[in-house]
Amino acid sequence: MYKVDLNSDLGESFGAYKIGMDEAVIAHVSSANVACGFHAGDPLVMEKTVAACRAAGVAVGAHPGFPDVMGFGRRNMACSPKEIKAYVQYQVGALLAFTAAQGVELQHVKPHGALYNMAAKDFDLALAIAQGVAAAAPKAILLGLAGSKLLEAGRQAGLRVASEVFADRAYQADGSLVPRSQPGAVIHDREEAISRTLRMVTRGTATAITGEEVPIDAHSICVHGDNPSAVEFVQAIRARLEGEGVAVAPISQIV
Amino acid sequence: MYKVDLNSDLGESFGAYKIGMDEAVIAHVSSANVACGFHAGDPLVMEKTVAACRAAGVAVGAHPGFPDVMGFGRRNMACSPKEIKAYVQYQVGALLAFTAAQGVELQHVKPHGALYNMAAKDFDLALAIAQGVAAAAPKAILLGLAGSKLLEAGRQAGLRVASEVFADRAYQADGSLVPRSQPGAVIHDREEAISRTLRMVTRGTATAITGEEVPIDAHSICVHGDNPSAVEFVQAIRARLEGEGVAVAPISQIV
Amino acid sequence: MYKVDLNSDLGESFGAYKIGMDEAVIAHVSSANVACGFHAGDPLVMEKTVAACRAAGVAVGAHPGFPDVMGFGRRNMACSPKEIKAYVQYQVGALLAFTAAQGVELQHVKPHGALYNMAAKDFDLALAIAQGVAAAAPKAILLGLAGSKLLEAGRQAGLRVASEVFADRAYQADGSLVPRSQPGAVIHDREEAISRTLRMVTRGTATAITGEEVPIDAHSICVHGDNPSAVEFVQAIRARLEGEGVAVAPISQIV
Amino acid sequence: MYKVDLNSDLGESFGAYKIGMDEAVIAHVSSANVACGFHAGDPLVMEKTVAACRAAGVAVGAHPGFPDVMGFGRRNMACSPKEIKAYVQYQVGALLAFTAAQGVELQHVKPHGALYNMAAKDFDLALAIAQGVAAAAPKAILLGLAGSKLLEAGRQAGLRVASEVFADRAYQADGSLVPRSQPGAVIHDREEAISRTLRMVTRGTATAITGEEVPIDAHSICVHGDNPSAVEFVQAIRARLEGEGVAVAPISQIV
Repeated sequence: MYKVDLNSDLGESFGAYKIGMDEAVIAHVSSANVACGFHAGDPLVMEKTVAACRAAGVAVGAHPGFPDVMGFGRRNMACSPKEIKAYVQYQVGALLAFTAAQGVELQHVKPHGALYNMAAKDFDLALAIAQGVAAAAPKAILLGLAGSKLLEAGRQAGLRVASEVFADRAYQADGSLVPRSQPGAVIHDREEAISRTLRMVTRGTATAITGEEVPIDAHSICVHGDNPSAVEFVQAIRARLEGEGVAVAPISQIV
Repeated sequence: MYKVDLNSDLGESFGAYKIGMDEAVIAHVSSANVACGFHAGDPLVMEKTVAACRAAGVAVGAHPGFPDVMGFGRRNMACSPKEIKAYVQYQVGALLAFTAAQGVELQHVKPHGALYNMAAKDFDLALAIAQGVAAAAPKAILLGLAGSKLLEAGRQAGLRVASEVFADRAYQADGSLVPRSQPGAVIHDREEAISRTLRMVTRGTATAITGEEVPIDAHSICVHGDNPSAVEFVQAIRARLEGEGVAVAPISQIV
Repeated sequence: MYKVDLNSDLGESFGAYKIGMDEAVIAHVSSANVACGFHAGDPLVMEKTVAACRAAGVAVGAHPGFPDVMGFGRRNMACSPKEIKAYVQYQVGALLAFTAAQGVELQHVKPHGALYNMAAKDFDLALAIAQGVAAAAPKAILLGLAGSKLLEAGRQAGLRVASEVFADRAYQADGSLVPRSQPGAVIHDREEAISRTLRMVTRGTATAITGEEVPIDAHSICVHGDNPSAVEFVQAIRARLEGEGVAVAPISQIV
Repeated sequence: MYKVDLNSDLGESFGAYKIGMDEAVIAHVSSANVACGFHAGDPLVMEKTVAACRAAGVAVGAHPGFPDVMGFGRRNMACSPKEIKAYVQYQVGALLAFTAAQGVELQHVKPHGALYNMAAKDFDLALAIAQGVAAAAPKAILLGLAGSKLLEAGRQAGLRVASEVFADRAYQADGSLVPRSQPGAVIHDREEAISRTLRMVTRGTATAITGEEVPIDAHSICVHGDNPSAVEFVQAIRARLEGEGVAVAPISQIV
């Protein structure tokens, strides 16, 4: 029987600022990436988010980012590998204080935003992230873009890794994402996005934008909860996956 | 044989900013309070400071503070108990990621600056701190001002506690510090400060500013490393303690 | 003819975080208090908010706060008067860069949240704020709670001042607000709130919670735009004021 | 008679953190670049630094940087031109509140660290900086690397510009700096550095690392005050310049 994880970013509110429909999306995903205070989230939000995940039976992961709340961690920053390792280690440790206190295991770590994107292509940066994870939570799974340097670095650092796919993004012949700057990068048709995802999960391949079938590991599907339409999509893709006999399960049951 | 701990704040540098003579003072103390990034310190500094403590055989404690780098954690902030619990838990967890990775035990937690001072008198705040420590590091010792609400709260939260004294501060008849605003609050004569401290350690009493002998638990003496004169004082008090047969040992060997 | 200002906090969004229904409320107020980056707001938000005010014909004021984004400036902080003066001066100067570039005059300054509340009662703090305003924008009007120390300090610092009232708050016999912790502090009935406000504007008195009529200067009414119901209230109070022949006009036309 | 400006970064302390020998270096320079709180400095430090410059007769400039105190503004950040314009405008406005209050003119703006370096090569970024300066302080001189995009952008934005040279850096045949990663990039011999600088000022040329004489505008020489040796160098270069009949004068007297 096929299995796949649905992961979403949660706990990105900050002080008086609320962002994301956490309460709505948490019912439909199997794993949550919880912000750790550097790009979003704060200690109170982290505590509440871990509690909400625990109550919903959703696996918890850390979602470390660049130290840039004003930019929501979406802006590339030229930090050194030493800095990145320490920043990741710090953030994962901080979240562990909340998971451990609530008797929840830290399932995975997925870098956020610009850190995630840079780590997909820059092996030194990716290795720094992986070393930070290995230092703070050696049993955690490193979740990264399918075919990325991050997964390679995670393996080298001795971590278990999981490969993430995007339902609404087109792939190139080498298995990488079509850059957003190019036409066709984003799949706007919901049905097509779901069908493509289903194929990635069940066949392990995606049809590249140039027509080739390319192998792709789909351990986890990235979904969003930042608006009502995104939440509907999560419901729809989950219903379709389950309707086709694909079980939705946290990453730890997949890799 | 008498024993006492000498503790000092370390790891308060931040990015390009260096503060404190950590390299000099670390040779003379038995316990270090390591800043956790909220009022001072950053992840790289934390990693280096834990490594330096490990190399020097100095026990490591967390030194959580208010989220106020610009004020160095020295300004009272009206945070709620819920916020404080989560802030302490976060900071202790972050430091644990560095101690655990280096095979070092987290010996204690001592709140910093305004948080320490407020917690000495405000039981609700003190309990929030103690609960944050208990959540993140239940085996850690809570280090607080002798006779303070913080020690009371630590006991109530099920933590081991240790009682801290100040070599250069005068005490009142109820065992509390003479406020800095009053004459005689600070003992400027080095010899007198050392003699008084020695008496606190060996007899368990201090002579109050009003003349009475008051009982006081002196598990740990707070010393500083922020200038050459302070470092000289640490050397002098340690030499005198050892000369009088008092062993200097980390808190975990005392309480 | 009676005149009164309606002021609302605007520009409190921050990076990816959106807060407040600025677009909706801006149509109904005469003055805006624009956050300056210390407790809320960021440079881009400030620029956009000034542009929106300019387009809507709403007068612009600075809304400086404590340096505490995580607490939204709502937590008391024990900053020194020197620090407060410099913090206010800095924030007002930063906003002036945006108003000046858009050919908009900075009409007023109103401290935010905890800074506003503390300054109502603490003259030294209030004077520090007033001095910061006088240093950065000597022609700006200082907007503060009716009967507060802030107005007194503003006058002493040589500033024009304006007196603010709250539609939904009960007053004490000395003209101060009934603390929120006491029963009857908040007036929940919309009609009653509007009627009371109308009386403050037209008669210059409020009925204290103990029954006395107390004199009160109502130059500006504080309204909110953080939820649909608040925006409806602004519309309702404006309609009622205008229906009763009270003109809504920016503070500069009133004091 | 030849004239040149000596500029140094000042006011980079932050809260309890002191950095730079401001008191020592201020006696020897003609212009100061004052940090504005984004990468270094805080409102109190800004106020004191402007006062010190005023007392010493040193011209004041703004030194805006990336919003990254932890990285001291030395890490490239991928901010958008819109963000950069607003960040520069904000920081310049904040400093203006202190210069204006003290009756000091804001002479110039020089971007800091990574922002300076990126703007030397990236015209869009440089233009965003120039537009931020033009919006906040249209009469200020934009100080940038000789031959850089920043100067080009400043001219396009209608600003006066001044060209900065480095005493201790080698130049390439196109007038740009030899990258630090290449051998010979830094001139370690003090006498050679001074002689080269003298030639840049009096002849308007530098000998490139490849031997050619290349034209270079030396309106201002960048010097440092972060350690005793740097301060000695400032004294030495100033003495030599004046000994050779070159007057040291603020930028506004040169361009």
